[in-house]
Amino acid sequence: MSKSSSPLKIAIAGLGVVGSEVARQLINRGQQLSMAAGRSLDVVAVSARSSASDRGFVMDGIDWHDDAITLADRDDVDVIIEMIGGSEGVALDLTRAALRRGKHVITANKAMIAHHGAELAGLAEDNQVSLLFEAAVAGGIPAVKTLREGLAGNNITRIAGILNGTCNYILTAMEQTGEGFADVLADAQRLGYAEAEPSFDVDGIDAAHKLTILAAIAFGQKPDFGAAFIQGIRDVSAVDFTFANQLGFRIKLVGVAEPGQAPRMQTCLLPLDSQLAKVNGVLNAVEFHGEPIGSVLAVGPGAGGGATSSAVLADLMDIAHARGSLPFGQPVAQLVDTADQVVTAVADTPFYVRLMVVDEPGVLAGVTNILRRHAISVESLIQQGRAPGDTVALVMTTHETAEPILTQALDEMAGLTSVKAKPVAMPILSADLEG
Amino acid sequence: MSKSSSPLKIAIAGLGVVGSEVARQLINRGQQLSMAAGRSLDVVAVSARSSASDRGFVMDGIDWHDDAITLADRDDVDVIIEMIGGSEGVALDLTRAALRRGKHVITANKAMIAHHGAELAGLAEDNQVSLLFEAAVAGGIPAVKTLREGLAGNNITRIAGILNGTCNYILTAMEQTGEGFADVLADAQRLGYAEAEPSFDVDGIDAAHKLTILAAIAFGQKPDFGAAFIQGIRDVSAVDFTFANQLGFRIKLVGVAEPGQAPRMQTCLLPLDSQLAKVNGVLNAVEFHGEPIGSVLAVGPGAGGGATSSAVLADLMDIAHARGSLPFGQPVAQLVDTADQVVTAVADTPFYVRLMVVDEPGVLAGVTNILRRHAISVESLIQQGRAPGDTVALVMTTHETAEPILTQALDEMAGLTSVKAKPVAMPILSADLEG
Repeated sequence: MSKSSSPLKIAIAGLGVVGSEVARQLINRGQQLSMAAGRSLDVVAVSARSSASDRGFVMDGIDWHDDAITLADRDDVDVIIEMIGGSEGVALDLTRAALRRGKHVITANKAMIAHHGAELAGLAEDNQVSLLFEAAVAGGIPAVKTLREGLAGNNITRIAGILNGTCNYILTAMEQTGEGFADVLADAQRLGYAEAEPSFDVDGIDAAHKLTILAAIAFGQKPDFGAAFIQGIRDVSAVDFTFANQLGFRIKLVGVAEPGQAPRMQTCLLPLDSQLAKVNGVLNAVEFHGEPIGSVLAVGPGAGGGATSSAVLADLMDIAHARGSLPFGQPVAQLVDTADQVVTAVADTPFYVRLMVVDEPGVLAGVTNILRRHAISVESLIQQGRAPGDTVALVMTTHETAEPILTQALDEMAGLTSVKAKPVAMPILSADLEG
Repeated sequence: MSKSSSPLKIAIAGLGVVGSEVARQLINRGQQLSMAAGRSLDVVAVSARSSASDRGFVMDGIDWHDDAITLADRDDVDVIIEMIGGSEGVALDLTRAALRRGKHVITANKAMIAHHGAELAGLAEDNQVSLLFEAAVAGGIPAVKTLREGLAGNNITRIAGILNGTCNYILTAMEQTGEGFADVLADAQRLGYAEAEPSFDVDGIDAAHKLTILAAIAFGQKPDFGAAFIQGIRDVSAVDFTFANQLGFRIKLVGVAEPGQAPRMQTCLLPLDSQLAKVNGVLNAVEFHGEPIGSVLAVGPGAGGGATSSAVLADLMDIAHARGSLPFGQPVAQLVDTADQVVTAVADTPFYVRLMVVDEPGVLAGVTNILRRHAISVESLIQQGRAPGDTVALVMTTHETAEPILTQALDEMAGLTSVKAKPVAMPILSADLEG
């Protein structure tokens, strides 16, 4: 438990929402945080695009750098807090330079860690410094620490997470208002829950970055964003929520990672009585499954200055107290390269399938013949109302089915003249934690 | 990040359900756990009341001690895992002796930490060893690590927890079956969810031990079990669940700790849409509120060999990796003595009140006159059915009321001839995390 009591000197690169909040906390609550850290936490330098705006803290005695990279050159800096963002460019250059210069790095940059985590972890190891990224996954929820330390004695068998607050907000609002994706997205943009360019969120990319990082820690593998299967929430219709509820489920964007399989980010159905299904609105949640623990769930704010800065400050406390952890829990040399890994097939799951069909005689026979040919067994079937000649929804849930087989069957159904739109299919997940 | 790579030598005192599971994990999964620890984890000695039974692991090369205290005398032991239990006696003697001899101690003993935590933390500090007790609070949920490290940058303003799985199971079963406390308790005992002597659980003592520990870490105070206000679940009737639901609430035993106030373990009403209200059955949950994070909730198994051994193994990993933490997050000399603390009054809360009254003219006037005299304002009122001359339930919810004033009013109501049983009152808590 040897640790320094000398001041810890900090530079912050990037003063957006989170960077500014981190600076405000460190400066305005400096005494309390230094007490908790057991040593003085001193912000000595910052860098941002514009020095003009008032960010709610006093810059006295703090050096301003126009070029973030130059922060790594300062001999008096122990820790660089990287809040610039983006998987490449300045953030990556700064992180590399800082680690090479023997400085600890704290980052909220999920894209950079998902793409370059193994290389950066190697640099941290070589230079015996910390690379910490609690803020990169699920905002304020201490998901990385829970996995890397709190559950370190477990053999992790599965992670399931709601990792994007924007998507969870949109899905919750669609369910509660009955409005369509586009309208709810527009509302979310007005309320500041979605970006003007929303594809990073609604196409599942942001959530898949986080899932990639969790999978790397959980299963001792190099983060490999390219391996992830990613599906967003754009295909879900208002009507799917009604059917899902009727069948006892709720629709969520859930990331699932299991050992030896590509991480999957999927819009799926969860049983209404599962803990994960009860996490609504902008909240994030991560469910960890392992032996001997069973299952643990953590729920909290996945974004925002307050929540994210809490995660950054926790990383800073670990550095102040010399509580070292390897970025992915073990030496990079021991991490498995997923490209070399024998990938086991994803277990068969039940599926929810919705077809838009013309209500006419023979439709059902056409569909069920295809199912029979592929040996897909139907668990339940709902046909919406009766409207001869009109287009209505035909909803089925299947028993456990292999995804490629289902996809093939859906392609064939799409070819039927009575099927009027691209069939929608979502896996039905089971959940360990019920309540 | 200096740490040893020599084997970590471990002694386990107590081989009950949890102690045996810890030994099984360490011995049967030794290689995997040693890999995660970055060094060999060697069980060198154990102690238990009987050496006769087969506990599912091979004792080869492990020394047996009839007297647990003698484990502390071994020069070759680095860590003692205390799984004996009880706030005094052998567990306390062993823990004191081990810390004094410079050995790390891991314990699941909530009673011992709630009663003697400050003294033992002082011994750990003086001898520069770890005293870790993740397993003492909320089983497998990494609640202690979350509070001490994951949220270390926050100013914690409130903790609310479901900390006893037996009580949560009983309350959930009462709500779902409509059966009374005694019947459900008997079922729980048959199923192994409740002890033959259930008072430690159902009277809230076990949960209050855990709450005392969390409050100590959260607010930097010496654990002071004697200061806690404790109320169990025995007074709740089946009928209360029906009324609570009708009013939009669920009944839970919830521990609440706030800075400058005595921790309170209370049977109370939570809004149905709060995350905490959705935690049912034997699960535990802890909700942390703080600045800047907002609120975070963790849910998981609160008891059992698997969950508890996961927490013990996490503590062991921290010791193996030399990730030192002070037991209560800061030096004992800095911990506040709650006896010296200015106690602020508990904020007024709304209350649920149930009276059993004879259905006769004038009853309501008698009750409402008392309320008016105490300036207690009623939010809603439900009278069960109409049954002239019979005893029926009269249920009210109040606006924010000071507890001493409500208690006085209830005492007066109990004196009315038409009131037939001791009035039941439960606070209605608000919850930050909704979903």
